[in-house]
Amino acid sequence: MIKAYAALEPGGKLQPFEYDPGGLGDHEVEIAVEFCGICHSDLSMLHNDWGITQYPFVPGHEIIGTIAAKGAHVHNLALGQRVGLGWHSRYCMTCSSCLDGDHNLCVQPESTIVNRHGGFADSVRADAASVVALPEGLDARSAGPLFCGGITVFNPLLQFAIPPTASVAVIGIGGLGHIALQFLRAWGCRVTAFTSSASKQQEALAMGAHDVLDTRNPDALAAAANRFDLILATVNVKLDWNAYIATLRSKGRLHFLGVTLDPLDVQVFPLIAGQRTISGSPTGSPASIAAMLQFAQRHNIAPVVEVFRMDQVNEALARLASGQAKYRIVLQNA
Amino acid sequence: MIKAYAALEPGGKLQPFEYDPGGLGDHEVEIAVEFCGICHSDLSMLHNDWGITQYPFVPGHEIIGTIAAKGAHVHNLALGQRVGLGWHSRYCMTCSSCLDGDHNLCVQPESTIVNRHGGFADSVRADAASVVALPEGLDARSAGPLFCGGITVFNPLLQFAIPPTASVAVIGIGGLGHIALQFLRAWGCRVTAFTSSASKQQEALAMGAHDVLDTRNPDALAAAANRFDLILATVNVKLDWNAYIATLRSKGRLHFLGVTLDPLDVQVFPLIAGQRTISGSPTGSPASIAAMLQFAQRHNIAPVVEVFRMDQVNEALARLASGQAKYRIVLQNA
Repeated sequence: MIKAYAALEPGGKLQPFEYDPGGLGDHEVEIAVEFCGICHSDLSMLHNDWGITQYPFVPGHEIIGTIAAKGAHVHNLALGQRVGLGWHSRYCMTCSSCLDGDHNLCVQPESTIVNRHGGFADSVRADAASVVALPEGLDARSAGPLFCGGITVFNPLLQFAIPPTASVAVIGIGGLGHIALQFLRAWGCRVTAFTSSASKQQEALAMGAHDVLDTRNPDALAAAANRFDLILATVNVKLDWNAYIATLRSKGRLHFLGVTLDPLDVQVFPLIAGQRTISGSPTGSPASIAAMLQFAQRHNIAPVVEVFRMDQVNEALARLASGQAKYRIVLQNA
Repeated sequence: MIKAYAALEPGGKLQPFEYDPGGLGDHEVEIAVEFCGICHSDLSMLHNDWGITQYPFVPGHEIIGTIAAKGAHVHNLALGQRVGLGWHSRYCMTCSSCLDGDHNLCVQPESTIVNRHGGFADSVRADAASVVALPEGLDARSAGPLFCGGITVFNPLLQFAIPPTASVAVIGIGGLGHIALQFLRAWGCRVTAFTSSASKQQEALAMGAHDVLDTRNPDALAAAANRFDLILATVNVKLDWNAYIATLRSKGRLHFLGVTLDPLDVQVFPLIAGQRTISGSPTGSPASIAAMLQFAQRHNIAPVVEVFRMDQVNEALARLASGQAKYRIVLQNA
């Protein structure tokens, strides 16, 4: 039996919950969970904001642990090896996206916390192809958030072959944005942080930003016209997107990583005149995650985390919901 | 003196008009105009739709002719050589876009029909860098529209390195779209035409489309879900863009070539979930134009044109405004 924490109804408190995972599949592994980060999408799923949550619901998809058992056909992982598991716990492996190496765009993926149980537990199962080994030297305690928040901001750099000569801005310095600043600085880029929080300005500079602009100041935005090759939008609120598009250089890209429910309301002419692009992307493939982990290890990049014991899960969720966490919360098993 | 046709007021009839172009600059050429296509932007400028027209206004920026005179520092063109001139008649040559080879994104360009006189004339001047030689064997009579409409639809194939394995749709089978179908078929792509005109369906197939979908039929659009790698939107009216985005495969791109004044009103989630992109672009650089001309010559691609005598310019403009032209109108000097 796997010992987990589950909510029994939308928004309910998490409580101890045991389930039988059944026999281990040929391509599956069982991970003994050491750490599990908490992502905003765990909260969204807890509250059934997307209408797809099944209860009892066990959150958790930023998992670090060791391989406790493996199926007969698992060749990429060894017993005892330290690994991580993110948003996806299985890929179909045969759709055109999977065959292209874009497993994160799989048309029939399994998500770690959708219709199955996640990482707020002592153990979790997953298909071996979705599990990525941690490089030696990477801090396991803070590595969990790399597997969802981290890969989400890292993947666009790979996807669009962003050069180190690029000028890149990050909108929103939170769970995703604070990792983005670190990656971008190490990537060699000119890095700008957009934040509405005065308290985060100094921290943004410390985490890699060369400069910080106040999102509430239209003058600051206007003064940044034609400056950025890439903007990573990590917020989930509606901003004046046309004003941000005006800060893009020719061929610049405004890239969405946070889901805003309001439509974008974007003018066409500035896209045409400057060959500008609007796009979005979700998480990243196993190969991209592995590349990110190597990069993070080489450049001493780590999410800034607040660690709670696994049995403090409800306090941890309340802390995340308060918006006060700096910058990501991780649960630790005893 | 250059003999031209000019409007003296917004929307006015064109009438004979002479002007003195002054001394020829060191980097300039004078082109003896043989043919000049008519573009919708000539109409927009004639009516001062963009608020930037100076009168007397001489339209015309799809020009084919021969070099009649050249400045002392013109090395890329020879007297008597047959050439073309499109939307831009001069680039700054020193902004970062020009230095990158993206002259069409120049921050201080000169446009052939903005604050100077265009190609509805016996002669026209331009900076030599904006003038491109016609390859041997390319039909001069129909080549003019390649220099604006043609390069506008060809350039995205270069910019985004569209592979011949791509499935590409064209929205709007008119002056731009009918050239796009030909280019895409020769490029090796799977080609779909979106049109609301029943009369154009057979013609679209003849020009290269593998299939034709009716833009007025929501069922046809719904049935095309996840089909296209690229959609070229050549229309200037508001469509249900979210429905078109749903026809994009993962990593697909909806690319705007026609200026719609209504904002796009696009949902973010489909962009993120499928790593989809929205973008736009204007015309193309001299290097791109030269590559396009070679490609057109090699594949026997030519705009379908209706030819009027230059002194029939007002009838020709009325014909374009009627929306009945198939598919592009060219004026010919005697």
